Amino acid sequence: MRPVFVLLTDFGLTSPYVGQVKAVLTAGCRDAAIIDLTHEVSAHAVFEAAFLLAVSIPYLPPQSIVLAVVDPGVGTERAMLLLDAPQIRILAPDNGLLAPLAHQGTLWRISMPEAPSATFHGRDVLAPVAVRLALGAPPIAVATPWGTQPLVSLPAPPAPSPGQILTRVAHVDRFGNCLLELPANTPLPARILVQGRPARVVRTYSDLAPQELGVLRGSQGVWEIALREASAAHLLGLGAGALVFLTAADPLAPA
Amino acid sequence: MRPVFVLLTDFGLTSPYVGQVKAVLTAGCRDAAIIDLTHEVSAHAVFEAAFLLAVSIPYLPPQSIVLAVVDPGVGTERAMLLLDAPQIRILAPDNGLLAPLAHQGTLWRISMPEAPSATFHGRDVLAPVAVRLALGAPPIAVATPWGTQPLVSLPAPPAPSPGQILTRVAHVDRFGNCLLELPANTPLPARILVQGRPARVVRTYSDLAPQELGVLRGSQGVWEIALREASAAHLLGLGAGALVFLTAADPLAPA
Amino acid sequence: MRPVFVLLTDFGLTSPYVGQVKAVLTAGCRDAAIIDLTHEVSAHAVFEAAFLLAVSIPYLPPQSIVLAVVDPGVGTERAMLLLDAPQIRILAPDNGLLAPLAHQGTLWRISMPEAPSATFHGRDVLAPVAVRLALGAPPIAVATPWGTQPLVSLPAPPAPSPGQILTRVAHVDRFGNCLLELPANTPLPARILVQGRPARVVRTYSDLAPQELGVLRGSQGVWEIALREASAAHLLGLGAGALVFLTAADPLAPA
Repeated sequence: MRPVFVLLTDFGLTSPYVGQVKAVLTAGCRDAAIIDLTHEVSAHAVFEAAFLLAVSIPYLPPQSIVLAVVDPGVGTERAMLLLDAPQIRILAPDNGLLAPLAHQGTLWRISMPEAPSATFHGRDVLAPVAVRLALGAPPIAVATPWGTQPLVSLPAPPAPSPGQILTRVAHVDRFGNCLLELPANTPLPARILVQGRPARVVRTYSDLAPQELGVLRGSQGVWEIALREASAAHLLGLGAGALVFLTAADPLAPA
Repeated sequence: MRPVFVLLTDFGLTSPYVGQVKAVLTAGCRDAAIIDLTHEVSAHAVFEAAFLLAVSIPYLPPQSIVLAVVDPGVGTERAMLLLDAPQIRILAPDNGLLAPLAHQGTLWRISMPEAPSATFHGRDVLAPVAVRLALGAPPIAVATPWGTQPLVSLPAPPAPSPGQILTRVAHVDRFGNCLLELPANTPLPARILVQGRPARVVRTYSDLAPQELGVLRGSQGVWEIALREASAAHLLGLGAGALVFLTAADPLAPA
Repeated sequence: MRPVFVLLTDFGLTSPYVGQVKAVLTAGCRDAAIIDLTHEVSAHAVFEAAFLLAVSIPYLPPQSIVLAVVDPGVGTERAMLLLDAPQIRILAPDNGLLAPLAHQGTLWRISMPEAPSATFHGRDVLAPVAVRLALGAPPIAVATPWGTQPLVSLPAPPAPSPGQILTRVAHVDRFGNCLLELPANTPLPARILVQGRPARVVRTYSDLAPQELGVLRGSQGVWEIALREASAAHLLGLGAGALVFLTAADPLAPA
């Protein structure tokens, strides 16, 4: 079966970094398909990368090998991980990126080469390991068992309190929609305040009037703040990681 | 024959949206090639997307399946179309995107699933349909005949008047060249005024002096406004959709 | 063996230009893999493109065919070159892009079609030639021997002087790291001044304190200026092509 590699990085597309990773993968597995999730994760934003990875996993082809490289600690002693799950293998640094997914499979510590480059482990460590896995090598050929030590974890989400939901922006998309770290199955009242501004809970972007602020269950399994055909992120001054307060609007107050 | 999918969207590349569409396509057709036309159509700019699609069609591999998703009306009752033409199939919302091409094939209305997601029909409706078509399903398996009702159309181009051409910017490229909605076979005088500024009609960018404004037949089959090694869009304050006036320059006036 | 095409351009990704090149390549070689090095070379920056090409070559799959198109002289009489080297073939305009690599193989002048388009030789000249080469055509089928005439060369790097290294920024990456035209095997003292500001020579980004300026051997085989989790390019006001002065810091002065 054709190998499928999936890439998620903060490398950007202005440099040849992503291309060099793809070159190494293609040199090793000439027939492989390579899918870019995105290379524009906010620089060094492990929290955002972990979110984007987790929400994308359900769509990946079976037996995908994911390279997730948002790695401000490159060159330090932080470990490189391999998560070996039934339908997917994920290679990533031990910096929180894999923490939300770790329970889904078995963890391995990737064996580092004798003298790895100090600044580009995605190309020089992870890509060659991904190639070996794609060619059939078992985890033990490229890694050692992780054992029971805890992974580096992400900052915990803010605790909810009665009458108010405190959450964070996990990602801002191209349209300025703010994807929240708030599962779409969390109930919300029909009219709420977002950072103190009235917003309507709607089903889809088109249910909003032009420039109206709304909240909806988006395509990534979480609640989103949206502004019809404009940028909610710009209006509210929000970026990835920002805290967001949602409170029930007084039903008697004018919207 | 290897399936070829072609994508044109306004999703941008900062989010995993494009990657999730590619994941669904690759999960269904593991051997497929996927070509990105662009994902940076101005947000919600159906007019620009229709232009970029139409000018790119002649270069696509035979039997390409195109997913064109610029869809501000996602989640509303607007239909999803399949245009079945001899060498190409195009999936797109009925919002004007397909209007310039509809005469080239047979139109079908894509059957919607029972409970489609409200915000991401590209991934959840079009990609699975594209996979089924690529695997050999006939249109009737995924759609119903469109019949004779008119498509949603694009705003008509401005009407020409004697001595003056009124046109629109269809697209601004990375260099600041302004591609006009004016076919390259439209005759123009050798010296013209663009928004009142003198410009020279030339064959190629290099025929212009540094910072000189010019008009030329570009690579997309239309006239372009260009500024040598600088941005004509910036100089003239033009973006996609902007109106442009071209008038013959007084041949006796200083250029 | 599956053909591999590698693209390096300044076309950007907002227009369908790259997609049209890929469409022509895929129409001709339906099974090909296509790798993007980057399409965001600074507009018309031949110097930067030559650098990015040279540093990426070692990672490319064997028998790759590279299309390198940064071509402000498109449509003029400048020649289009084919460099035929043992493991790679590179197609590029004769504007300096190939000069650093020309000694690695045999040069050919690509035969131009009767009436090439004036503005898009990447799509209309190079891509069809690349397809013919990938399908097995020898260079003589698409080109004539270049002979002994010199190539257009790049501006020479600044000359070193005692106690000071004068170099240039070859590329600024997404993180604001400034990649210098200074091979990583050039010795540097442990503490230096960069444009007069103290900087520490370190092994990896993480060796720097937050906001500390440093210089390190980066992943591209050259020295880089870096600022921990911030943009050195922004701090120092540097872009591709900018001159950089490195001098030894007085070992007795406070850092």
